[in-house]
Amino acid sequence: MKNIKLTIEYDGKRYLGWQRLGDSDKTIQGKIEGVLTQMTGESIEIIGSGRTDTGTHARGQVANFKTNAKMTPDEMRDFLNRHLPRDIVVKKAEEAAARFHARYNAVGKQYSYYIWNETVPSVFARNYSYHYPQKLDIAKMDEACQKLTGTHNFSGFSALRKTKKSTVRTLDKLSIQKEGGMLHLTFAGDGFLHKMVRIITGTLLEIGAGELELAVIDEIFASNVRKYAGDTAPSHGLFLDEVFYH
Amino acid sequence: MKNIKLTIEYDGKRYLGWQRLGDSDKTIQGKIEGVLTQMTGESIEIIGSGRTDTGTHARGQVANFKTNAKMTPDEMRDFLNRHLPRDIVVKKAEEAAARFHARYNAVGKQYSYYIWNETVPSVFARNYSYHYPQKLDIAKMDEACQKLTGTHNFSGFSALRKTKKSTVRTLDKLSIQKEGGMLHLTFAGDGFLHKMVRIITGTLLEIGAGELELAVIDEIFASNVRKYAGDTAPSHGLFLDEVFYH
Repeated sequence: MKNIKLTIEYDGKRYLGWQRLGDSDKTIQGKIEGVLTQMTGESIEIIGSGRTDTGTHARGQVANFKTNAKMTPDEMRDFLNRHLPRDIVVKKAEEAAARFHARYNAVGKQYSYYIWNETVPSVFARNYSYHYPQKLDIAKMDEACQKLTGTHNFSGFSALRKTKKSTVRTLDKLSIQKEGGMLHLTFAGDGFLHKMVRIITGTLLEIGAGELELAVIDEIFASNVRKYAGDTAPSHGLFLDEVFYH
Repeated sequence: MKNIKLTIEYDGKRYLGWQRLGDSDKTIQGKIEGVLTQMTGESIEIIGSGRTDTGTHARGQVANFKTNAKMTPDEMRDFLNRHLPRDIVVKKAEEAAARFHARYNAVGKQYSYYIWNETVPSVFARNYSYHYPQKLDIAKMDEACQKLTGTHNFSGFSALRKTKKSTVRTLDKLSIQKEGGMLHLTFAGDGFLHKMVRIITGTLLEIGAGELELAVIDEIFASNVRKYAGDTAPSHGLFLDEVFYH
């Protein structure tokens, strides 16, 4: 039996996120499993590196599945791309070690969040960025990024209900780049809590716009209270860029 | 009466091109005129710098119209952007000289054509580039660009029926840039015949793929016969970038 690793790109707009629900037709996982089952004649279940929310995009989601199919990985990739809708593309299919597990073996992830920071909206970025026309103090946002970087309990920056699992994560990188009218936030770390990237983004924006003070970050880390943070930035500005493995 | 100049960005996918037809709801011109008429209470006709085909995009289409409305140009821009669909955006509205005419005064245009030249398709470029997976000889395509640049009778590279108007145009710039898996062709010149950019692009691709010889360009200029040129590249890879005025 082969263990196949897939690297997947998708436009989240039409989907209820990664994870298969009852109606498999509305999730990325469901769409891919449907084609794999058709391809192999087996009942295939794929393991993703993690979920992505409704509307969130991916440039490098990773998943794996086991199959007895005789096709080469390139043939599988091409079959998938011929049968998947055009907003889901398998960039790579490769044989992985028998024990490879896309979720358990992931040691980190990188996300991007795009903010269109101009008065006038952008046609071509409209589905791939959050239009936030307020004037932003980028230097202050940079300071906030410094405070957020490192190892912290991020539960105040998450949509989690109370949990016994650890909510401590290490944010290795949080940077802001200005590319014309677009702000590009890059997040890299060992793991991310539910909606953590979008809540941090919303908080950074309110700090940049002067609606929240820089000190709010210390308060949230001290109290772990979600309501002190900014609004959750919308899902259509968010991309899962890459999943890291050893 | 004020003469207002608009700079317009649009995603051509859902439209039958720029020029208003009977059913005004399916053209960019028709959509904008509908909102302007609502805004001013006047029956407004806008003059575009030229047509764009069904499915072609624009980053900088220019148009003008006359009105007695008392609003400032910025107020007009904001009204338009609030009422237009999200795939049409007015980037700028400004008062122009009374004699300014978006078509007659245009002295040149720049277009871009994007080709996604990888085996695997691109999710995010799928609606904004032509997926052409064949291996391309870029050096040969560059040579072809040199031959095409300058002043020529481009009727063999157009979809025109016989016409008494001149089909001589000057192509000031035709360049190819490779940006990762994307080829970006830039065309700048004093004017472009119907489908000229897409037919030149199709011809360059067939030369790059080895399906046409470089010499075909001289043959087309010598004969003005459209059928010697390559296929017309699809409209969704084409962008009107900018219209030049003195």
